[in-house]
Amino acid sequence: MFSNTTRRLIEWGDCDPAGIVFNPKFFVYFDHCTAQLYIAAGFSRSTMLEDFGAVGAPVVKTGAEFYMPSTFGEEVTITSTVTRVGTSSFDVTHRLEKDGVLRVEGKETRVWTLRDPDSGNLVSAPLPEPLAKVFRG
Amino acid sequence: MFSNTTRRLIEWGDCDPAGIVFNPKFFVYFDHCTAQLYIAAGFSRSTMLEDFGAVGAPVVKTGAEFYMPSTFGEEVTITSTVTRVGTSSFDVTHRLEKDGVLRVEGKETRVWTLRDPDSGNLVSAPLPEPLAKVFRG
Amino acid sequence: MFSNTTRRLIEWGDCDPAGIVFNPKFFVYFDHCTAQLYIAAGFSRSTMLEDFGAVGAPVVKTGAEFYMPSTFGEEVTITSTVTRVGTSSFDVTHRLEKDGVLRVEGKETRVWTLRDPDSGNLVSAPLPEPLAKVFRG
Amino acid sequence: MFSNTTRRLIEWGDCDPAGIVFNPKFFVYFDHCTAQLYIAAGFSRSTMLEDFGAVGAPVVKTGAEFYMPSTFGEEVTITSTVTRVGTSSFDVTHRLEKDGVLRVEGKETRVWTLRDPDSGNLVSAPLPEPLAKVFRG
Repeated sequence: MFSNTTRRLIEWGDCDPAGIVFNPKFFVYFDHCTAQLYIAAGFSRSTMLEDFGAVGAPVVKTGAEFYMPSTFGEEVTITSTVTRVGTSSFDVTHRLEKDGVLRVEGKETRVWTLRDPDSGNLVSAPLPEPLAKVFRG
Repeated sequence: MFSNTTRRLIEWGDCDPAGIVFNPKFFVYFDHCTAQLYIAAGFSRSTMLEDFGAVGAPVVKTGAEFYMPSTFGEEVTITSTVTRVGTSSFDVTHRLEKDGVLRVEGKETRVWTLRDPDSGNLVSAPLPEPLAKVFRG
Repeated sequence: MFSNTTRRLIEWGDCDPAGIVFNPKFFVYFDHCTAQLYIAAGFSRSTMLEDFGAVGAPVVKTGAEFYMPSTFGEEVTITSTVTRVGTSSFDVTHRLEKDGVLRVEGKETRVWTLRDPDSGNLVSAPLPEPLAKVFRG
Repeated sequence: MFSNTTRRLIEWGDCDPAGIVFNPKFFVYFDHCTAQLYIAAGFSRSTMLEDFGAVGAPVVKTGAEFYMPSTFGEEVTITSTVTRVGTSSFDVTHRLEKDGVLRVEGKETRVWTLRDPDSGNLVSAPLPEPLAKVFRG
């Protein structure tokens, strides 16, 4: 299925007093990787927000395993792969590596979300077919 | 087993353009809740860092399910419960609720970690028995 | 003029590899303190966002001096005082202290901001008089 | 004096419910820019931390003016220029621009900081001459 790899430089502010990346920051990294997946799939931010009308695709389930710490100044790669495309949700796996060694693996399920024009509430909706098609690969 | 409940006010800066808490922030909340578990168990920060010599207890595995969004200005409660005490690791479950309704449930496995005096590397170590005893409840 | 004091516990995730609060976090603290000023002044979040129609009050100018570092586990107080109330802007000074000793002093100018119903752009607007009146003290 | 320009893509998690970058994030950006200044000056992270023995160079004074908001998905440039090199401190100005238009200007004063081997306290120290020389340009 669809996949994209990005590079990321570990910042001082990402790290905690133990000198390693503070674990919630990996979910910040992964969130950005999923945003980059849309771009890599050919859908700009304005397409996503305006044409498709998405408020976003909030994570409903996530998890990660941390195999090795990362430290300030290291450049890592993150490969994000769509692993399931459902009607209104999809799964992404993120593999953060350094020199070919897996350090963190994260998985997430996201739900395509619009704002209901009547109630103003956030509601799930079917994935736009053009996006789903690219994600299926 | 040992449990502790804290209150948290959702801040503006915790929320994203969809107007809801940005998912990595929940892991920031949960990290703080685990820090509060040590305090609730009777072990101060100086006991943890100086007497026990911990660099920290990094998360090696975590996961969460998000059932309902939370927004700026809401006060939520988070109940953190030790669910397993191993030799050098332990598990905590965090349940974030509002008005008795579960919104987010997170689980984490942490490993007690010291800095090896010779190599300077982070290494796992047995949980201090006084802490393990309270955690077992 | 109007003033409010809050307490804040320094979190592990607020601190960097030097073991002290990462300086941008103080601006996170101060932002929350200003949000608390509204509450202390008697205006709830729904009043602010719905009755007053504010998108927020973005900071247009800010600055801080850092006199002493703060570390994980310390509880500090932050006293936030309105120092100027203009037509559509106001100034707040935040003094972060521990045991009566000033550690950080921040100043900010904020502009009351609405979303223009026609263009959708963010535009400045006069401070609601009920809020301005309390802020003037 | 010495200057370096970096590019930065605004992330979803950098933005708040008003849909614009949450102001403390600009200080996160600027902190990273100063870290990049050292690299651009030819001093690697290991040189900085090990050869020069720095714990870091904490900000003692900072300020910023925000002229225009930035939103998710925009790529901005940040030009960071050393504007003063003192004995143990230095000043940096950061200019964040998009399409040649200035959006945010930040200024900071940092102090070169070591950990006193006896007391363990953070103490200021003269800037390493090789770094000061490049910064003077």
